Amino acid sequence: MLSLTLQRIPAVTTSLFCKCSSKVLQRHCSRMLSKKTRVSEALASKETGSHVRIQGWVRSVRPQKDNLFLHVNDGSSLQPLQVVASSHLNTRDLTFGCAVDITGTLEKSPNKKQNVELKAQRIEVVGECNPVDFPFKIKERHSLEYTRQFPHLRCRTNAFSSLLRIRSEATAAIQSFFRESGFVQIHTPVLTSNDCEGAGELFQVQPAGDKKDSDDPNPHFFSVPAYLTVSGQLHLEVMAGAFSAVYTFGPTFRAENSQSRRHLAEFYMVEAEIAFTDSLDDLMKVMENLFKATTEHVLSHCAEDVELFHKYMAPGHRDQVDLMLKRKFDVISYTEAIEILKSSSQNFTFSTEWGCDLHTEHEKFLVKHCGNVPVFVINYPYELKPFYARDNQDQPKHTAAAVDLLVPGVGELCGGSLREERIEVLSQRLAQAGLKDTYEWYLQLREFGSVPHGGFGMGFERYLLCILGLHNIKDVIPFARFSHSCLL
Amino acid sequence: MLSLTLQRIPAVTTSLFCKCSSKVLQRHCSRMLSKKTRVSEALASKETGSHVRIQGWVRSVRPQKDNLFLHVNDGSSLQPLQVVASSHLNTRDLTFGCAVDITGTLEKSPNKKQNVELKAQRIEVVGECNPVDFPFKIKERHSLEYTRQFPHLRCRTNAFSSLLRIRSEATAAIQSFFRESGFVQIHTPVLTSNDCEGAGELFQVQPAGDKKDSDDPNPHFFSVPAYLTVSGQLHLEVMAGAFSAVYTFGPTFRAENSQSRRHLAEFYMVEAEIAFTDSLDDLMKVMENLFKATTEHVLSHCAEDVELFHKYMAPGHRDQVDLMLKRKFDVISYTEAIEILKSSSQNFTFSTEWGCDLHTEHEKFLVKHCGNVPVFVINYPYELKPFYARDNQDQPKHTAAAVDLLVPGVGELCGGSLREERIEVLSQRLAQAGLKDTYEWYLQLREFGSVPHGGFGMGFERYLLCILGLHNIKDVIPFARFSHSCLL
Repeated sequence: MLSLTLQRIPAVTTSLFCKCSSKVLQRHCSRMLSKKTRVSEALASKETGSHVRIQGWVRSVRPQKDNLFLHVNDGSSLQPLQVVASSHLNTRDLTFGCAVDITGTLEKSPNKKQNVELKAQRIEVVGECNPVDFPFKIKERHSLEYTRQFPHLRCRTNAFSSLLRIRSEATAAIQSFFRESGFVQIHTPVLTSNDCEGAGELFQVQPAGDKKDSDDPNPHFFSVPAYLTVSGQLHLEVMAGAFSAVYTFGPTFRAENSQSRRHLAEFYMVEAEIAFTDSLDDLMKVMENLFKATTEHVLSHCAEDVELFHKYMAPGHRDQVDLMLKRKFDVISYTEAIEILKSSSQNFTFSTEWGCDLHTEHEKFLVKHCGNVPVFVINYPYELKPFYARDNQDQPKHTAAAVDLLVPGVGELCGGSLREERIEVLSQRLAQAGLKDTYEWYLQLREFGSVPHGGFGMGFERYLLCILGLHNIKDVIPFARFSHSCLL
Repeated sequence: MLSLTLQRIPAVTTSLFCKCSSKVLQRHCSRMLSKKTRVSEALASKETGSHVRIQGWVRSVRPQKDNLFLHVNDGSSLQPLQVVASSHLNTRDLTFGCAVDITGTLEKSPNKKQNVELKAQRIEVVGECNPVDFPFKIKERHSLEYTRQFPHLRCRTNAFSSLLRIRSEATAAIQSFFRESGFVQIHTPVLTSNDCEGAGELFQVQPAGDKKDSDDPNPHFFSVPAYLTVSGQLHLEVMAGAFSAVYTFGPTFRAENSQSRRHLAEFYMVEAEIAFTDSLDDLMKVMENLFKATTEHVLSHCAEDVELFHKYMAPGHRDQVDLMLKRKFDVISYTEAIEILKSSSQNFTFSTEWGCDLHTEHEKFLVKHCGNVPVFVINYPYELKPFYARDNQDQPKHTAAAVDLLVPGVGELCGGSLREERIEVLSQRLAQAGLKDTYEWYLQLREFGSVPHGGFGMGFERYLLCILGLHNIKDVIPFARFSHSCLL
């Protein structure tokens, strides 16, 4: 287990630095008489009477006749710390949003909502905040749409700061899940010369200000055109051939000209690749366990933050999440899915003939049909899947060993497949697609110690939407990038 | 603490899948009579006599009269598992590099080098490997330069697989260090509309096949030019204003036309930002603790892998690492550094006048001068530093509160600074640089609850070079991207 702390190693000498800023240092030293404490630590404190120093931002100010009441938040928890002071410590610049540095004593709170409160002896306003200009107002609840206009400030709202704490913990949980299951984490590249899957919708990259010169025999910085990755899969397949089980977790890109609630130009994907498997069952087991283990971790480690969403933005969603955790995920074949859709009374916009791709409307219907639990759809039409998907060599309905995980509210959350490990089958398919030269290296992986293998990817933002009951992908990423928008 | 395992949740139903691949499944089931075991688990096993199944790649084949000896590796450890079988199990396709699936019994090994060996009852060659075509040869030690030619296969060499296990563990250690110290992890964007620091050397991004049309009033996908990030700092500063302590760990980009051993076009950076600090001392403490805690974790969790490098590629380097861990890092001011350089007898290529930037030759000299331990250089000339570095407002030598960490063998490992939090000082500097409109949002951070803060970045590949004693940055990243090279 990892066990590392910030405090363990003795402080670095400051002698040289002090010479240059003795005034700053003296101020610093006098403050240091009180221990710096995070708000979350103070709230969890069992000891009263201890002298502490809190630094954060004011979330509410209530001056009364004798006393002044403040709520101070420093981002370590959703709940602020209540600060009580004599009203003579009140100043004009003590407003909603200002930054404060407070020393005082932790005391038992008479208020049932919190264990402790801080009796302040000193309140310093470190940074002022003009409440007229500040886009967020005290005691007002701002919609997610409104806060989206302020990408540099929205992390100071309760909802978005809760979201980012959840995102950080979910990231840690995913990495821990894979590490403890023996997967090696691989930093697959963002820049790639593959236009994987021939997917179109690629971003191309070149040095800024680069003017293509027709006289230059090599107009590309990398000698070849370079793109932003749409998936780390092919690079993970390289690594699965050495480590048996690998994963990557990072940004991927799609130049989709879409303003949809479900798409971003830059989004995060968790991708895993497993060697020595010849069954979709193994992949589904990892997907289901990843989903459940990560969600259980988030529910237990971010209970307060998750509750904010489940209580105020998606009432009733907690029951949905509990159901997903309790129930085994369903499995149906693509062929069965088509039968279900065809026999339904719903009018779909897109075709439900065998051989057609499933659209969001179909995915959502299937999830509902299966009782609002996640459902795996397996064995898709061969022609719908990219060259690397393993041919099931069945008939008359020709399928590939591919799987999608559909979840309530979102539709497709994960996509995966067994990969074609048979060199002659893969070689033929690449030749048909005219890709044999481009993917010579990929074919070589099958020449030297090839093994049956498969993998999947999970959209991380969609995962967050699914567990929190939110609807717009722009609300679950720190800085959203989509067509016509790349703020900051 | 995180505690998640792959096994915890019951297996997914396979009934539907089975229909489609009953032959595969039957084969699968017969194999399942033996439990699948990773090589690392088998090697650590105390129980002998247990029936296991191992899957991996053959690293050596030694046929003898009665017995066949194999070494099998599955990427879970550097050390392979010795397999002993009756020679009648030998087949022509059992060669170096082939993939095997073996069942047998773990028994106590007569060999002192290992606890156990596997007495094989069944050996199946899953994927052949033609030893003539395979670029790596049995019992040959291949140079790092040689293996670099095969980016899709080099992870199958001992050295590169050890490197990637170390990289994965170091990543986990860094994330754990920050998490346990109360930092929130932020996924800062790869795509940005800032050309941060006006640094030049930017990559620009646009949809592939995008033809600029002079009639189109808005020729950009994002309405503005978009670049690949050179640093997540400005986005982290946004977040430090809400969470007090944040970090990011991900890829950053530089379009440097350099084939140097120290530069890549895509490399990983750890960046941290801390609010409520007015002293470089706080930043140096975090940098030193990060370095030491991560290194201690890697040395204890990847002892065997690290030893490979320290024993065969950088003899004597372990002592260097131990010294760095034991000794407190040095601190000197830039002014002192210049005095040291000027009074030395060494002839430097670049100027050592006050006001000039430190180059690698200077950095390496300073590290040696300080006894080959890491050294912080603080308070650089104001004019050398970007607009966000905090003005020390000193004279006659005008400096900014910036810090670099120099380490043996590598030179600059980390760079950081206090950030200018005073709105009037920042505003003036931005105006002078003609950047006031571009960074209006950045200025606004100082308008609403501004706090003294600072941060730093650490080059992850340089960190790996430093602790392993390696010299070429291309040897410590899964897929190296640099000018004229973007393989795979």
